[in-house]
Amino acid sequence: MSAGFTMLESGSVRARNASVICLKNVGLLAISGISFYLVGYTLMYGSAQIHVGDLRFLSGPSEVERSLLSGDESAIAAVLENENSTMSHWLFQMAFVASSASIVSGTLAERVRLWSFFVFVVVLTSLIYPVVGAWTWGGGWLDEMGFKDFAGSTVVHSTGGWAALAGAVVLGARRGKFNQNGSVNQTPPSNVPLATLGMFILWMGWFAFNGGSHLRLSGVIDAVAMSNIVVNTNLAACSGFVAAIALSRLVFHRVDLMVSLSGAIAGLVAVSAGPDFSGHFWAIPVGAVGGTICVMGLKLLEKCRIDDGVGAIPAHLFSGVWGTIAVGIGSGGDLLVQLTGILSVGAFVFPVSLLLWLAIGQVINVRISMDAERRGKDLVELGIQAYPEFLVLQDPEQ
Amino acid sequence: MSAGFTMLESGSVRARNASVICLKNVGLLAISGISFYLVGYTLMYGSAQIHVGDLRFLSGPSEVERSLLSGDESAIAAVLENENSTMSHWLFQMAFVASSASIVSGTLAERVRLWSFFVFVVVLTSLIYPVVGAWTWGGGWLDEMGFKDFAGSTVVHSTGGWAALAGAVVLGARRGKFNQNGSVNQTPPSNVPLATLGMFILWMGWFAFNGGSHLRLSGVIDAVAMSNIVVNTNLAACSGFVAAIALSRLVFHRVDLMVSLSGAIAGLVAVSAGPDFSGHFWAIPVGAVGGTICVMGLKLLEKCRIDDGVGAIPAHLFSGVWGTIAVGIGSGGDLLVQLTGILSVGAFVFPVSLLLWLAIGQVINVRISMDAERRGKDLVELGIQAYPEFLVLQDPEQ
Amino acid sequence: MSAGFTMLESGSVRARNASVICLKNVGLLAISGISFYLVGYTLMYGSAQIHVGDLRFLSGPSEVERSLLSGDESAIAAVLENENSTMSHWLFQMAFVASSASIVSGTLAERVRLWSFFVFVVVLTSLIYPVVGAWTWGGGWLDEMGFKDFAGSTVVHSTGGWAALAGAVVLGARRGKFNQNGSVNQTPPSNVPLATLGMFILWMGWFAFNGGSHLRLSGVIDAVAMSNIVVNTNLAACSGFVAAIALSRLVFHRVDLMVSLSGAIAGLVAVSAGPDFSGHFWAIPVGAVGGTICVMGLKLLEKCRIDDGVGAIPAHLFSGVWGTIAVGIGSGGDLLVQLTGILSVGAFVFPVSLLLWLAIGQVINVRISMDAERRGKDLVELGIQAYPEFLVLQDPEQ
Repeated sequence: MSAGFTMLESGSVRARNASVICLKNVGLLAISGISFYLVGYTLMYGSAQIHVGDLRFLSGPSEVERSLLSGDESAIAAVLENENSTMSHWLFQMAFVASSASIVSGTLAERVRLWSFFVFVVVLTSLIYPVVGAWTWGGGWLDEMGFKDFAGSTVVHSTGGWAALAGAVVLGARRGKFNQNGSVNQTPPSNVPLATLGMFILWMGWFAFNGGSHLRLSGVIDAVAMSNIVVNTNLAACSGFVAAIALSRLVFHRVDLMVSLSGAIAGLVAVSAGPDFSGHFWAIPVGAVGGTICVMGLKLLEKCRIDDGVGAIPAHLFSGVWGTIAVGIGSGGDLLVQLTGILSVGAFVFPVSLLLWLAIGQVINVRISMDAERRGKDLVELGIQAYPEFLVLQDPEQ
Repeated sequence: MSAGFTMLESGSVRARNASVICLKNVGLLAISGISFYLVGYTLMYGSAQIHVGDLRFLSGPSEVERSLLSGDESAIAAVLENENSTMSHWLFQMAFVASSASIVSGTLAERVRLWSFFVFVVVLTSLIYPVVGAWTWGGGWLDEMGFKDFAGSTVVHSTGGWAALAGAVVLGARRGKFNQNGSVNQTPPSNVPLATLGMFILWMGWFAFNGGSHLRLSGVIDAVAMSNIVVNTNLAACSGFVAAIALSRLVFHRVDLMVSLSGAIAGLVAVSAGPDFSGHFWAIPVGAVGGTICVMGLKLLEKCRIDDGVGAIPAHLFSGVWGTIAVGIGSGGDLLVQLTGILSVGAFVFPVSLLLWLAIGQVINVRISMDAERRGKDLVELGIQAYPEFLVLQDPEQ
Repeated sequence: MSAGFTMLESGSVRARNASVICLKNVGLLAISGISFYLVGYTLMYGSAQIHVGDLRFLSGPSEVERSLLSGDESAIAAVLENENSTMSHWLFQMAFVASSASIVSGTLAERVRLWSFFVFVVVLTSLIYPVVGAWTWGGGWLDEMGFKDFAGSTVVHSTGGWAALAGAVVLGARRGKFNQNGSVNQTPPSNVPLATLGMFILWMGWFAFNGGSHLRLSGVIDAVAMSNIVVNTNLAACSGFVAAIALSRLVFHRVDLMVSLSGAIAGLVAVSAGPDFSGHFWAIPVGAVGGTICVMGLKLLEKCRIDDGVGAIPAHLFSGVWGTIAVGIGSGGDLLVQLTGILSVGAFVFPVSLLLWLAIGQVINVRISMDAERRGKDLVELGIQAYPEFLVLQDPEQ
């Protein structure tokens, strides 16, 4: 998934910032891989009520797994009861937390300072995300209420989206993005095929995310259930894409490839909250509404003069909210409980992230200078260019 | 596979058309994902003799699978008899039908009108391909005759190739491709590493296509059989590549990377009709002849003044025909039956596709204008550029 | 893995050599796929003591597997004893040998002659690598001594690294790389996002390499063991990246993306010798030291005026040596035996490769001409450009 996010974001930003996006995404994978190992996973699954005193921090195989590995075959039954091994579960969850951080990277592209972003990621992946995770997948109060979020529309995508929104508010828009008269200067993606590749990788990765969220593959019933999940995932992506392309053609009179790629992602996000149904047709409206919300959300953000570098907030937050609601409508969730979940996660993640961004801003700048923005983050922060040998158009105004 | 085709095609066309190719390929994945769900799969597998009255259109889990999912454990035995779940089979077949449509996309690159292509894909994936599929994998008359096509040399690749050839005939060549005196102006690929990446993705994806076509993985004999299939697939790709590179060096005195990539694809296509043998050496001539036919086929098409944007017809159609014949020679098929299959598929797909392209042309143009071609499809159809910041060479003549 | 190496190398070299790198890597995959089938695998596993007389060259399923495939169900027990099928083992080993050859491709980038490289690869993959493999994984004398190399820190990465070092010594540095006064002219990577994508593909592929090196997946204990291996692999990559980025920031006062990507690779290489432990914390120092050694090694090579095109020698050879030693320190290997293995492999591979490069140089040039280097290998050896439509900066001095 990280590879997908990196290519999508790197292709979507301007050439002068394409390397830093790569560094940010490899960096967030490395950081979350370590912080989720040191702290996050234990916080998320160690105890649903978060008694810090209880924590054994470092993640590792369970007691019975250790017995099994050291040759005690009588431990097999106990290990089997868990249905998957602790550390394969850890790895799977780590991929989710890294995805959540990638959303923030995309929204704040082209202006966030590298080190302030990394500091934010450390806190997001070791504390903020695990708290949301503990409430839900970790068996906490939302889970006890019956909140359903199969593969992360709220836990992963809204969490990342709220954190990104907070960052966008604190950082402000890129220079030259909004004109005084309210009109918007679009920043064209520097490498369209690369962005498309990123979307494909995400699409494929989502099969693993949603299919794998079944968390078991040990018999015929699991195989059937998982195949239904993956088909629903695919249908929602298809309909999200088709909805976005149709909407952009009909309403805005322009077939917009980048918006359509976001529409497919939005369809995937929307279906993730509850892809485990066998009447596949339902996946089509879920995805199509997701795609529609994404296109509309992009316009809404522009109206609010909130600058989202790659359109991650509509695709992940808005569509994630819709997907979580949709479970309450069509796949067996309680609508009120779903809304409670959506609102509590927002009420926790958004203000905490806001405070965190402000706090980071007190210590080090959260944003690069106007001049650095003009010259590009690649040159200023890394001293390199993404495509040093290609003659790049100089943007006279910017 | 779609990601592979997209990158291969996007890297192979000129920069001014690289975005539309991306849109076309994501679009065909979305369209075929929906049309194959709504109609195609049921047509292909619902009844071998195609009684339209019988069709329950929407695809979905089988009765016994639904029972199992709703908790009826006595259904396990009946589900197990099918050896794979209905919807995982659906997903697998959907990847094939999308590949078939990708071949058409490649051949008609740089001149086909976006919407006419999408209309063609709707019909191809919901009707034309499923009819061929019903005759063969769906248990129809070719299957009853004993026609062997393990993983689609004819069903997938020739079908796509015939449809592409029909399109190439109707649309004509790109402007400036052929000179009055019969000589050919090559159009250099805009992004060679991207095209190479696409080929790698296809190569890997083929392991899943051919290995997965075994359709079972439930015991030791399946594991052994599948490993043989994948090794044969790999050997044929290797020998297809080596044959193409040697041929281009010896005959044309130039090591031609793009042709060699096509040669590897041709090797993969050739072995797909029957990769299930355990005397691996046979994979080497199958692949090498495929690679050779591909190189020769490229020249043949040029001689016929048929313009194939990325060389998809030689790699998929010509090599697919060879691979289907090869099963009759070396891996247990009946040569006469194989030829019958090849000819019937061609006799059905080519004229139907030809009529369809002509019919589409009556309603909307199938081809963009000369001026649009000069300026590039990206700018004309999408209003964007694939690489907007890179200074791109202006082609004075074109 | 080959796709990963290709993208990493193609993005790391200058634009004028980016196509040949693609050709070299597809070519080495094709060549090693054939030579390892014809000779290499049998040499490696056919007999530990290498009696050439014994060899039945062509690889293929075992006797009992052939019986099983032809319907003899009594062969199941015998096949099961091997724990994996012969040809899936073959395929897995083939991916390793191709990786080893990719290392050589990276180091010698931008100056090695295409055909001399291919000749070297034939010998490397059919003779040199299989001999090292026979000593170790094939059950030879190093294996009997108790030498531990779980997934190839020495067998794969050091072997490739020694061969690359020999080539770098024979070929000499690229023109303009080193100045008379000892200072170094860096050659900027032509496509940073592509190189990053390559690193991601390698990172993911490594999960399969190290996880798959468990060589069994047939029960709960295997699943637990494999999950531990993959988590260790991930942690080492994370810490290798973080170490490299921190070191480049603190010591060289510049966040260096390309060096950090090498650091992640170095972490992966380091942990490969022994990733099968369950106290995951140990993976962090193993990876971090790997990343550190890689950064330091880059400087050391420059001091020695050895030109390594993409920094493959520090990441694979130096870090591979460290990883093999680390098994002797922290995961159950005997330090003396580990050192014996490291030294014997070096004492065999380096001089043999050196002689081979010199011998090839006697017959055909191993290196392109200075003028060809200036114009770029793509134009000279292939007659194409990787990005023909982008205006590329002319390097006045070079």
